[in-house]
Amino acid sequence: MSCVADPATGTAEASGQSFAAGSPRVLVAGATGFAGALAAELLWRHPRFELVSVTGRSETGRRLEDLYPRYRVPLTLSELDLDAAADLDAAVVAYPHAAAAPTVAALVQRDVRVVDLSADFRLSAVAIYERWYGEHPRPDLVGEAAYGLTELHRARIATARIVANPGCYPTAAVLGLAPLARAGLIADVVIDAKQGISGAGRAFDETTHLSMAGENILPYKVACHRHTPEIEQQLAELDPALADRPVQFQAHLVPLDQGELASCYVTPTRAVAPVELAELYADAYRDEPFVEVAARPPGTREVMETNFCRLFAAADGHTGKIVVLSAIDNLWKGTSSQAVQNLNLMFGLPEGEGIA
Amino acid sequence: MSCVADPATGTAEASGQSFAAGSPRVLVAGATGFAGALAAELLWRHPRFELVSVTGRSETGRRLEDLYPRYRVPLTLSELDLDAAADLDAAVVAYPHAAAAPTVAALVQRDVRVVDLSADFRLSAVAIYERWYGEHPRPDLVGEAAYGLTELHRARIATARIVANPGCYPTAAVLGLAPLARAGLIADVVIDAKQGISGAGRAFDETTHLSMAGENILPYKVACHRHTPEIEQQLAELDPALADRPVQFQAHLVPLDQGELASCYVTPTRAVAPVELAELYADAYRDEPFVEVAARPPGTREVMETNFCRLFAAADGHTGKIVVLSAIDNLWKGTSSQAVQNLNLMFGLPEGEGIA
Amino acid sequence: MSCVADPATGTAEASGQSFAAGSPRVLVAGATGFAGALAAELLWRHPRFELVSVTGRSETGRRLEDLYPRYRVPLTLSELDLDAAADLDAAVVAYPHAAAAPTVAALVQRDVRVVDLSADFRLSAVAIYERWYGEHPRPDLVGEAAYGLTELHRARIATARIVANPGCYPTAAVLGLAPLARAGLIADVVIDAKQGISGAGRAFDETTHLSMAGENILPYKVACHRHTPEIEQQLAELDPALADRPVQFQAHLVPLDQGELASCYVTPTRAVAPVELAELYADAYRDEPFVEVAARPPGTREVMETNFCRLFAAADGHTGKIVVLSAIDNLWKGTSSQAVQNLNLMFGLPEGEGIA
Amino acid sequence: MSCVADPATGTAEASGQSFAAGSPRVLVAGATGFAGALAAELLWRHPRFELVSVTGRSETGRRLEDLYPRYRVPLTLSELDLDAAADLDAAVVAYPHAAAAPTVAALVQRDVRVVDLSADFRLSAVAIYERWYGEHPRPDLVGEAAYGLTELHRARIATARIVANPGCYPTAAVLGLAPLARAGLIADVVIDAKQGISGAGRAFDETTHLSMAGENILPYKVACHRHTPEIEQQLAELDPALADRPVQFQAHLVPLDQGELASCYVTPTRAVAPVELAELYADAYRDEPFVEVAARPPGTREVMETNFCRLFAAADGHTGKIVVLSAIDNLWKGTSSQAVQNLNLMFGLPEGEGIA
Repeated sequence: MSCVADPATGTAEASGQSFAAGSPRVLVAGATGFAGALAAELLWRHPRFELVSVTGRSETGRRLEDLYPRYRVPLTLSELDLDAAADLDAAVVAYPHAAAAPTVAALVQRDVRVVDLSADFRLSAVAIYERWYGEHPRPDLVGEAAYGLTELHRARIATARIVANPGCYPTAAVLGLAPLARAGLIADVVIDAKQGISGAGRAFDETTHLSMAGENILPYKVACHRHTPEIEQQLAELDPALADRPVQFQAHLVPLDQGELASCYVTPTRAVAPVELAELYADAYRDEPFVEVAARPPGTREVMETNFCRLFAAADGHTGKIVVLSAIDNLWKGTSSQAVQNLNLMFGLPEGEGIA
Repeated sequence: MSCVADPATGTAEASGQSFAAGSPRVLVAGATGFAGALAAELLWRHPRFELVSVTGRSETGRRLEDLYPRYRVPLTLSELDLDAAADLDAAVVAYPHAAAAPTVAALVQRDVRVVDLSADFRLSAVAIYERWYGEHPRPDLVGEAAYGLTELHRARIATARIVANPGCYPTAAVLGLAPLARAGLIADVVIDAKQGISGAGRAFDETTHLSMAGENILPYKVACHRHTPEIEQQLAELDPALADRPVQFQAHLVPLDQGELASCYVTPTRAVAPVELAELYADAYRDEPFVEVAARPPGTREVMETNFCRLFAAADGHTGKIVVLSAIDNLWKGTSSQAVQNLNLMFGLPEGEGIA
Repeated sequence: MSCVADPATGTAEASGQSFAAGSPRVLVAGATGFAGALAAELLWRHPRFELVSVTGRSETGRRLEDLYPRYRVPLTLSELDLDAAADLDAAVVAYPHAAAAPTVAALVQRDVRVVDLSADFRLSAVAIYERWYGEHPRPDLVGEAAYGLTELHRARIATARIVANPGCYPTAAVLGLAPLARAGLIADVVIDAKQGISGAGRAFDETTHLSMAGENILPYKVACHRHTPEIEQQLAELDPALADRPVQFQAHLVPLDQGELASCYVTPTRAVAPVELAELYADAYRDEPFVEVAARPPGTREVMETNFCRLFAAADGHTGKIVVLSAIDNLWKGTSSQAVQNLNLMFGLPEGEGIA
Repeated sequence: MSCVADPATGTAEASGQSFAAGSPRVLVAGATGFAGALAAELLWRHPRFELVSVTGRSETGRRLEDLYPRYRVPLTLSELDLDAAADLDAAVVAYPHAAAAPTVAALVQRDVRVVDLSADFRLSAVAIYERWYGEHPRPDLVGEAAYGLTELHRARIATARIVANPGCYPTAAVLGLAPLARAGLIADVVIDAKQGISGAGRAFDETTHLSMAGENILPYKVACHRHTPEIEQQLAELDPALADRPVQFQAHLVPLDQGELASCYVTPTRAVAPVELAELYADAYRDEPFVEVAARPPGTREVMETNFCRLFAAADGHTGKIVVLSAIDNLWKGTSSQAVQNLNLMFGLPEGEGIA
């Protein structure tokens, strides 16, 4: 096992950190939720990582395969034991925001590299975090976290101690908009996102009960979704002119399990011809193994249970706007397989190992 | 607007046109499709109309209840017989565009009042029709058709010979945007619409097969949906400043049967405070029996199999935009129950008769 | 309003009890669950009954229309106030088994006639109840309850103080098997039942979460479903030879909302020709307004949101067995609309009032 | 049974037939249907086979990845060219029954080993085939075909020229019943099977349209399903006392994509204690990598997109019958992944290669 990535997956020449003989030992903290459970499943089947432990407060003592019979992870859920963390090389932390940061801090202090699925380290400006989420438990660590949208931040991810795995909506939206942002073409953008019910998590409530979520299209968190600042931050990094330019973002639940589509409506800074638009996207993602620029509008089914993001961009001759459609599986590329993609990067493995 | 009965109270004081003793006799032409079949079902159960005939070329000789076992209409599908039309008072025509106009013309010539479910008479400018649909078969009749969005055009509908029943997307979108348009508050609008599979009609193909449409979110007709000019026309009627202002409209299929949500993102012409917005919507729809202004974002399930449109409008303090969410059942208020609502109006019946 | 039923709905000449001027006043106790909420909705829209109160411990103070936005019942959920029961004519009690009996007893003591949706009064033998459910809270009242499978027990229902509304599975199965049982044709029977997720109730758990219940077929309560003795009791009433003949019953959850199919496999006591079978079913249900003997196997969609039971029976020439397929909507005919059907009977109203 | 490699450990010690240097070259004939397309996808991703060609009359010239965008097979559909078959080592034939046999014959004549997904070679008695399907096109070849239920017929499959891949229902049912049949414990059996809509194939019709198949439970082919004789034949091979003992089999469609449950109700030849039953199943499948004997009733979701069959058996103390629940993915273990499992066997590869 070398630190040089498989050229087929187009990843880093030199990774941030190689590891000693043997497989890197990984923990999934919070494996009872959908995101943690899938991360555990992917790592259990992964040819290079060794999943050594899964934790989950509410279900301690149950085997993960009993909780998620579709997955076949025969480990028993335990409580998180930080004393045993010395043995670990990496951890995926799947806790709610604010609960995650202290655990992430404790792990990195024990030299465990962390992919954090929460929002705690996604926003580089603590003030913005606190406006949307409340007080930050560990602002001192914010500066060193890499934002884990793999395709945009490979170099930082490869060497980071903390990787803040993106929200699923920012993953779809930013991959869709990055070529336009980088080219300075975005004057204004409306993002209308739709997601399957797994996006609501394992919560048992009115949004997830099949007799309520079925045969329904449900908008939620109108004009206040916390993924908004994350998208704004990423777009502003790509185009400084977009700093302080708010993004209109709206989420909806639709009756399926896994799948997410971000429909992005861009008012461009200047007219963009279809040919230019096509080239922009082809150039941006030509070498990306997990971003597919499609010839027709993608359905989310096309990326179901994959790490792919499938994109389609069109110039609307009638309105002058640009429509970008970006499809992912919210649990895979939107969360857990992207976490593994990042872990692969962090440990010098081929980027698609275990997820392609 | 006055000649319409209060649906709550019973019969009409004075209708646009009364009818002789006995029930108006109605035909549904094209009852094999979803829209025609539901219109037939609603008219069959209607306490005032008499459904006398259902036609459908492809299934002649079959009973409608065999084709649609959920509905219980025991009539046999026949070919359309214009000679027998003299006996009719009204017809619902559920043909594809361009095929509808000649039949509509033949019926009105025989003094049959028609609610046409096709697009043929929805656009008042023939030139715009021809840009989106091709040559118009009967441009001479376009001028006399009333646009059948009941809440906006009651007076014309009540007396019209031809009522052009709106598309389902325009129904949801225009009801959602009308209060803003009327107040001159729309500078720009993006409409992202989602719809159940019944919106694709009875076509048996890749968009309707459960193993393809299920677990999928599918955008379609990117930057070219024919409902666009219909929405533009209606908004421009409400606010002449919107003439020649193109609307960004995008449709998506999601895996449910009946239900439609139009999510509208309005850039306002000036800042609108939440209180003003709330009053605007409350005032606009206070007396409308079938438009509900909701206190929270509506799921389409709340209007499933009803003639209701349920609306929610919010001012986004972050972006300054206005978000309007408009939920209908695409087959009911979006098509067939609105057709019956219009028929009720045309024949001086309480507007909600048979559909409430 | 007379106590003579509408002949069209084929019901009682003389009802058990007429009521004084004005509408019977009805309470729904336990309106927060699916069954109680639908009963409330049906009674709210009912032209003859007056729904005066809805109760529900866990959601006191919420309006029912907020809890169930699809229904439009503007009453506020309160705690059950037995002192106010003197004003009531009838109640639907939608409590869990064992919890229901004391409330039912308290209500009948106050001269309120009750349709009880629980299992507490369905089994005429207390010993059998206690084998399946544990100690019976009010065995003294068991003897006077009528079993509320309307088509089989009209006379008793019409005059009963307590009507034990059947389980949804017994409703489908017994209506399907009654013609065979009455003719002494059942030697052995296997019943395989499938039901939508609403059958699991409003519980928020692994059986109802769309991401777990979706794309799943889940057998449950293997060889121990509590609806078994109810079916056995009814069949034995129809054919005493079936006393002590156990019924094989198995339930499954499938990913839809409302719908139930009981597939019954009968080993007959003698060979039955197809013609004889057809006549048996035609004769049994010719005058039943809510039982349809179909010419082809019924899908549950055909009876969705109706009080119909649609049946199909076939003699299998290959095996000599008889296959009976019985489709209902588990929440309607299987529970709440049958409760209203029984209330109609009890108060001398046309049996289909408010549910057809 | 011995010549088969342990799927867990890697390559075969000794296969029924090894192959020359390089990967076996495989054709999928009829790749436009669900079964053929999935077989192509699995073979395309397979580490040992080389998928060289996909054929499909109706879609010649289209790329398979355009027809099935979820799969990523970049081959272009062509017409079947038998002259080019000399280059092939194996073929999966996914044609309708009767159409398959002549193509299978032509391929084996050219030394191509075939897994046939049709029913043409599943029944060893031509007379029984002809009673259910009509005239057999190639009765001369029936005798040499191996029945491709891998777990029951490994030795014959490994060396066969023609492997008749089982129907999906027989796969689930026979795996579920085999331990009982082998022990002579089946006196009578009723099989009630439920399946997702993919089981209806790519046909676009009333059984597959989401607006008709959704929210539906639909029994079909009552008392006449063609999988019946296949099940009977397999059971009779395991227990000759079951020859001429007809099996009651009934199929249902439920609204999901992939998944199948066979619920089997066995009247045993003698009383069977729970412990004996548990041992019988544990013993039968202890060494089977793809058959899981579960501790609780399996949902089909647990085997979705896998080659697993998950079983649960219970003795019903109330009735004395035995209930066996057998869950598979109808397209995977029920069809295409079992075809690959058989191909692995035929070419001396680890049985789980490419499908685990």
